[in-house]
Amino acid sequence: MRYVEKWDVLELCFSGPCEGNPFVEQHIHAVFTGKCECIDVDGFYDGEGRYIIRFMPRFEGEYHYTTKGSFPEAYSEGSFTVTAPSMGNHGPVHVAGNYHFAYEDGTPYYSVGTTCYAWTHQNDEVYRQTLAELGKGYFNKIRFCVFPKHYIHNLHDPVTFPYEGTPVDCSHLTEENFSYTVSFEGNNWDFMRPNPKHFHRIEQAILALRELGIEADLIVMHPYDRWGFSAMDRSADDLYWNYCIARFSAYRNVWWSLANEYDVMPSKTLEDWEHYAALLCQKDPYQHLRSIHNCIRYYDHSRPWITHCSIQRTDLYRHVEYTDEFRTRYNKPVVWDEICYEGNLDMGWGNISGQELVRRFWEAALRGGYAGHGETFLHPQDILWWSHGGILHGESPSRIRFLHEILLQTPGHGLRRGPGAFDETVGIPEQKNADAYAIHYYGFGRPSFREFRKNPQLQYRVEVIDTWNMTITDMGIFSGRFRIELPGREYMAVRLTRIQK
Amino acid sequence: MRYVEKWDVLELCFSGPCEGNPFVEQHIHAVFTGKCECIDVDGFYDGEGRYIIRFMPRFEGEYHYTTKGSFPEAYSEGSFTVTAPSMGNHGPVHVAGNYHFAYEDGTPYYSVGTTCYAWTHQNDEVYRQTLAELGKGYFNKIRFCVFPKHYIHNLHDPVTFPYEGTPVDCSHLTEENFSYTVSFEGNNWDFMRPNPKHFHRIEQAILALRELGIEADLIVMHPYDRWGFSAMDRSADDLYWNYCIARFSAYRNVWWSLANEYDVMPSKTLEDWEHYAALLCQKDPYQHLRSIHNCIRYYDHSRPWITHCSIQRTDLYRHVEYTDEFRTRYNKPVVWDEICYEGNLDMGWGNISGQELVRRFWEAALRGGYAGHGETFLHPQDILWWSHGGILHGESPSRIRFLHEILLQTPGHGLRRGPGAFDETVGIPEQKNADAYAIHYYGFGRPSFREFRKNPQLQYRVEVIDTWNMTITDMGIFSGRFRIELPGREYMAVRLTRIQK
Repeated sequence: MRYVEKWDVLELCFSGPCEGNPFVEQHIHAVFTGKCECIDVDGFYDGEGRYIIRFMPRFEGEYHYTTKGSFPEAYSEGSFTVTAPSMGNHGPVHVAGNYHFAYEDGTPYYSVGTTCYAWTHQNDEVYRQTLAELGKGYFNKIRFCVFPKHYIHNLHDPVTFPYEGTPVDCSHLTEENFSYTVSFEGNNWDFMRPNPKHFHRIEQAILALRELGIEADLIVMHPYDRWGFSAMDRSADDLYWNYCIARFSAYRNVWWSLANEYDVMPSKTLEDWEHYAALLCQKDPYQHLRSIHNCIRYYDHSRPWITHCSIQRTDLYRHVEYTDEFRTRYNKPVVWDEICYEGNLDMGWGNISGQELVRRFWEAALRGGYAGHGETFLHPQDILWWSHGGILHGESPSRIRFLHEILLQTPGHGLRRGPGAFDETVGIPEQKNADAYAIHYYGFGRPSFREFRKNPQLQYRVEVIDTWNMTITDMGIFSGRFRIELPGREYMAVRLTRIQK
Repeated sequence: MRYVEKWDVLELCFSGPCEGNPFVEQHIHAVFTGKCECIDVDGFYDGEGRYIIRFMPRFEGEYHYTTKGSFPEAYSEGSFTVTAPSMGNHGPVHVAGNYHFAYEDGTPYYSVGTTCYAWTHQNDEVYRQTLAELGKGYFNKIRFCVFPKHYIHNLHDPVTFPYEGTPVDCSHLTEENFSYTVSFEGNNWDFMRPNPKHFHRIEQAILALRELGIEADLIVMHPYDRWGFSAMDRSADDLYWNYCIARFSAYRNVWWSLANEYDVMPSKTLEDWEHYAALLCQKDPYQHLRSIHNCIRYYDHSRPWITHCSIQRTDLYRHVEYTDEFRTRYNKPVVWDEICYEGNLDMGWGNISGQELVRRFWEAALRGGYAGHGETFLHPQDILWWSHGGILHGESPSRIRFLHEILLQTPGHGLRRGPGAFDETVGIPEQKNADAYAIHYYGFGRPSFREFRKNPQLQYRVEVIDTWNMTITDMGIFSGRFRIELPGREYMAVRLTRIQK
């Protein structure tokens, strides 16, 4: 008997025809039937006559499957047993309540994301460095692209290409002659023949992230392109989307980001995005989280297929401070996936301080949203975390991890903005009131003390949190009207936890 | 022959009746006639049978005057000669162009203000300390109140009161039992009998400021009150306004701020403010600058009597960044008189860093507006610059002076926001284009370099300005497309000055 643990991947492999173009001429699919679910799954062609079907069971117990397809070897059937999940396997992340996330086993998930757009396209040394950094537990989500990236500081070719063919020559490219919009002339791709090695590399990355407890926020399309992958026709796009869905859906830690900066992709229309979204809704059997990320113009996050807002800030001065308004407007989780990166690039999107980035994380978190990290320090070999991964140089990651530890202590599940003065952001539990638990955050303010007026019938454990120096100081137990001394520094918070008498 | 310099004060003194209530029962006024002006001026009663008429001539040459009034000694006539202004005397400040200020002699005036609401009401030692600090040239405008102030950290009585009578006892007041709204019971004032000593103290302060080249932005009414001065009836208000106008108008450095936080004065209506404004328009012969300052609700700055916007920020995160929008909306100078103070108070309006305050000054200035300073560090004797004056403890004043020096170098007169990228604020001369002179400011961004693309036919002197460390580094002469190296720190600017070939 075959065994697979719940939320892990059952993989079925088949030999089949390799002549012609199996990507378009052959197909294979399966039906998996357990006591609680019956799931229809497309397989995919993995090259060299190899066909694969992947399945993620969501219930323990006995499963039966039947497979069929366009070639005789595709026909099979079998059984397996789904066992309990092992430690650390909590299943895929879903929306929980209106504004938050939880793993499928109910464990709350507080997103602290980062972005390394092209890390899977880098050489093995950088790839390993990235995983080693991610292993330090700073982040539990990472955004990255399936397609390679052409951009400033991103001029060399990826280690693999997503299609059979040959790329335009890049040897003449420099930061000086770089242009955001290029002709795709000189490329020679067969968009009907994906390169399985490229997709295998992505799924190895997804698996490695899964081992680290990190969600893979897959950016399926993006505009940073000199090869023409952002301007394929509908049939090539469909083949690509179906291939991604068939290969990646069974990994529990996958999120779908339809695009990064969808609004600066001149070849795509709103109808295109709605079409891809419909494909995902129809073909991803597990309904992984779905969103689409803007440059300037927000997508209409009220669309039913969008599970959560995935936002880039559009104003230099006020952004995560809109979290509460966005929650009200869309009634969905609000994830600020790009709010400027810690670094020293020439451009404003990539040169804020670690302090300011961490402030934005706290503001977003206490208002019941989630922020995203990125790092862009100039580097002699042009290895910038934001795109390539590699080694982290900034001061924010350890502070972001510290924030995550505090978020995990939230009673119930999730924070929302609670009542407070004009000069503080107060986070309280989503399902409870500010009498039970509250974090008062002062951001760039530098109070030397704060006065509190609470119900004299209730008692509170009061802690001072230095969000930058990562300390939590127990100030004792207070009741009624009391004053808490603070160091007159930026980035301080006070946490009140009601004590049950 | 009597001589007075242009824009100085000619004072005429008269003996007269002191019985009854001369403040309401007597009057005196004068007509001053020179070749270019004929000015009608009210005098005022200064106590002890003394009547005074003050006049500020605005043209050189011979003047004749006649005086009359309600008592025989009020009748007189005479002549005097107005001489050229001495060095440093540029006359009163007016609006110049739509958005800026200049002295009456045409010298541009770039406002860098501060606030010490109650400094004239403090003891002589603090008063002298304040003047000594102001003598260091950090600021060229100061906001302060005619009436004394009741507020947190402002609990003791002023050295003089504005009326005859006795105040409510303040010995029981503490920060703990302080309340913003109090009953005025226990006060015993004759609102028909101003206390000349109190007003004399104000005018001595105005004169001392004038010697230092500092504009006196007089706050005539305000809500921070335990004595009832904010809730007098119309006849008392009229007596007060007329008295202020008669006593203070002749000082060239006076600005009229009708109120601080007019919108939290429950006894006053919009009709009241419009009435006081009409009095000022009618009775101030020199038409000093006039505005009114908000707490939450902006006054309608489009009212014709308002010469410039005097604004308190109403959002924690975005404020001076609205300068360009406010210029467009009101077509008047935009002065941000309160944008949070450098300090460490418990409250957000008084605990930002010097860095952040200076950033706000630069943002306002480069967008063609003007910011205001204040300082609120906790102090063992409760002497906080923002209210009492005393000694400055913060880091921002010297940086504000540095900004002022740079503003004085503006070609032509005044800056406005010029074209720039999303991540910079570019200030260019009001009457010229960005090809002549431009300051590119990066605020909290930390670029390691910036690239510029200018007309290859033109040459620019390029300087890097460290707005915090107060250095200007000459980078040389550049043309066409060029790159300027920067230190990757916050608060940097690049100045381009076109060189005439």
